[in-house]
Amino acid sequence: MSSNALFADLYEFTMLRAYFELGMSEQATFSLFVRNFPARRNFLIACGLADLLDEIERFRFEAEQIDYLASLQIFPRPFLDWLEGFRFSGDIYAMREGEPFFPNEPIIEVVAPLGEAQLLETLIINQIGLQTTLASKAARVVVAARGALVSDFGARRAQGLDAATKGARAFFIAGVASTSNMAAGFAYGLPVAGTMAHSFVEASLSEMEAFRSFASVFPETILLVDTYDTIEGVKKVVALAKERGRDFKVRAIRLDSGDLDSLSRQARKVLDEAGLSDVRIVASGGLEETKIDDLTSRGAPIDMFGVGTEMAASSDAPVLDIAYKLTEYAGVGRMKLSTGKKSLPGRKQVFREFQDGVAMRDVIARHGENLPGVALLRPVMLSGRRVASETFELSQICAYAAQALATLPAELRRLEGCQAHLEVAISPELADYERETRERLIESSTARA
Amino acid sequence: MSSNALFADLYEFTMLRAYFELGMSEQATFSLFVRNFPARRNFLIACGLADLLDEIERFRFEAEQIDYLASLQIFPRPFLDWLEGFRFSGDIYAMREGEPFFPNEPIIEVVAPLGEAQLLETLIINQIGLQTTLASKAARVVVAARGALVSDFGARRAQGLDAATKGARAFFIAGVASTSNMAAGFAYGLPVAGTMAHSFVEASLSEMEAFRSFASVFPETILLVDTYDTIEGVKKVVALAKERGRDFKVRAIRLDSGDLDSLSRQARKVLDEAGLSDVRIVASGGLEETKIDDLTSRGAPIDMFGVGTEMAASSDAPVLDIAYKLTEYAGVGRMKLSTGKKSLPGRKQVFREFQDGVAMRDVIARHGENLPGVALLRPVMLSGRRVASETFELSQICAYAAQALATLPAELRRLEGCQAHLEVAISPELADYERETRERLIESSTARA
Repeated sequence: MSSNALFADLYEFTMLRAYFELGMSEQATFSLFVRNFPARRNFLIACGLADLLDEIERFRFEAEQIDYLASLQIFPRPFLDWLEGFRFSGDIYAMREGEPFFPNEPIIEVVAPLGEAQLLETLIINQIGLQTTLASKAARVVVAARGALVSDFGARRAQGLDAATKGARAFFIAGVASTSNMAAGFAYGLPVAGTMAHSFVEASLSEMEAFRSFASVFPETILLVDTYDTIEGVKKVVALAKERGRDFKVRAIRLDSGDLDSLSRQARKVLDEAGLSDVRIVASGGLEETKIDDLTSRGAPIDMFGVGTEMAASSDAPVLDIAYKLTEYAGVGRMKLSTGKKSLPGRKQVFREFQDGVAMRDVIARHGENLPGVALLRPVMLSGRRVASETFELSQICAYAAQALATLPAELRRLEGCQAHLEVAISPELADYERETRERLIESSTARA
Repeated sequence: MSSNALFADLYEFTMLRAYFELGMSEQATFSLFVRNFPARRNFLIACGLADLLDEIERFRFEAEQIDYLASLQIFPRPFLDWLEGFRFSGDIYAMREGEPFFPNEPIIEVVAPLGEAQLLETLIINQIGLQTTLASKAARVVVAARGALVSDFGARRAQGLDAATKGARAFFIAGVASTSNMAAGFAYGLPVAGTMAHSFVEASLSEMEAFRSFASVFPETILLVDTYDTIEGVKKVVALAKERGRDFKVRAIRLDSGDLDSLSRQARKVLDEAGLSDVRIVASGGLEETKIDDLTSRGAPIDMFGVGTEMAASSDAPVLDIAYKLTEYAGVGRMKLSTGKKSLPGRKQVFREFQDGVAMRDVIARHGENLPGVALLRPVMLSGRRVASETFELSQICAYAAQALATLPAELRRLEGCQAHLEVAISPELADYERETRERLIESSTARA
């Protein structure tokens, strides 16, 4: 796989050249965090770290990428020569994938020579933002399903190939059972699932013939029954069961349109009366967490939800207010004072306090403080190399996510609560440091040289 | 670049195996169209075709992809052997990139053996949906800017790498002047633009020192003035101009926070009074079309808008109700009858009627009809090979898009009009064909075999 070393904004490169020529190569810390949460997110789930670390490990400039930079005529040869040997040599501290987090908490800290940490900015925000956005959406869908399975049908409606494939991974971490996306199955070993499309029914001589022939090729398939008339379609599945007798092994039917509550009940009745109570019901078509919650709360007999469009782009909250900010350089705390965009200076740690297994409060502290609770930022890359003990199988990440979500107070895991977050406190030491840094900056910024 | 042949849903492959084994290999037509438009889109802009055709030209299964399919144990060897030789051999008809279009109009038609056309479904919807979504959003931003330049700053907030890079291309086609995304500059030769980040200012000894050193490396740069106090920052740019005298070549300042209307006026005044009327003003920070429209309608002296998050994911309308439907197989029209999801059967053409250079009406007709107006669907791939005369340079696509947008009635190009679409008529011949097809299907679907 080729390197995404050019996946950066032009200003990362111009600043890098300036740092290079001005000799600004001391150690810096950048923090990745989400400032304001979307309206319908009580928590977000940190996700995307493993893919990001893969990218950073293979981060290097290929000859044609250097040629491209040279063609812009703003980067002199010594700088380009230096870029050719560029490798990330720094340290990265991060929350585990699957960790729920809250506003302003650092979820990743990069500690590296200034230019190295700076050059990764766009890649880190983009990649962690993507999977975090999508995992956080999927967690809501899984809650709404109340134990029914959820399958990702969203590849076609995701914003591009990268989003579709990494999204399937993020959904799986958040509790989605399978994906229809074969590229994601291939890339991550995710369970793949699928049924049939209307086109198969339409291309066949008749709906009955379509069911008959598809079940002959795939006996344990799921038949799509709503191409023409849903309940008529279900009756044809019953007819097929009679035809095939003991060879009938169809696992489920799929409803993709209409009033899913009413149709699922009618379909269940028709199937049960024909002795087909083992045939499950899959529902799809414009579903998201509020529609699913409505169906499950009313007891619609649906065994699996296929969820596409709305989950694929997290369409109610497609972007995060996620930022990657310099917080320390050459051992000195740094921050902006810009209106409404403050950040906390210095290296940090986040401690989560529990009581009887329930998360009670987070405390953002200075790095090096030792406070009660579990320290959530862990070293995952040191001197540019992955920490082996922090490299997890996907199954381990899923298990961790499920366990971590279960520790959240119940009101945060409900769909309706609008931004009920966990309390996030600032440690007294960090608060002091923030004040000192601010005062120092105000003083020096009003001075004119 | 490797093939995205696995970028498909599992059901494409199961249907493909069924078609293969059942001998269903006659010619099919699939139509790509958008059913219902998002609330704030009077028109959409067709985009993404060139990248899609690139994907289709290199579409083939690599050995490890075949191995993956084999590992699922649902695809027998003869089918996998056939997949190894799979190439797209069909025809594709499409609207030009940059063409504005309206609900239910086919923007792409694929005419190919059933399995070939089916297998491309997920890739086509995803790739055309992505660039069409993003170009359509950007067109609104460009309108709002009222002639000021727009630069894409969105790479970090786009949903993944593919969305960020192809998005930059889509924005450019819709009239955006440049991108900060170097990967997009590299991939498409787009003009790249950039300034500096707050981190550069914060890492320097002082804001003044940051400006001094950055301008020494990049004399014609854009200086970011809002790290600590915006107007104090502008005064430092003035001080730098005095220091450097004739060597002062800074092109612009950038405001990234606060009340951009008020700050841009104050900054303009400070600059003008210092004789720096050539220094331009760039604004950024959470901008989208309504905020930009507000600023430009009030006459804020802003020369360029850097637009990130909201445009990058088209966050007010991140997904389209876009579908790819079988409309004909073996010479017979096909359609669904599912509730609320009807499609028009058969191969089609779209004619756009003009009066005095203004688009008046579109007519969706059957393929082969010859109606007044311009036929919008053109052959772009025949027998699996690109039509050379339909392969355009990016500059040609941009020019076409600008010209095509200019033909739309003025009320469609305003931001506020909620879904004022062009009239889209159905030709009498197509209406007859739709009715006949429907009646035939109702008849046969109620028959039981």
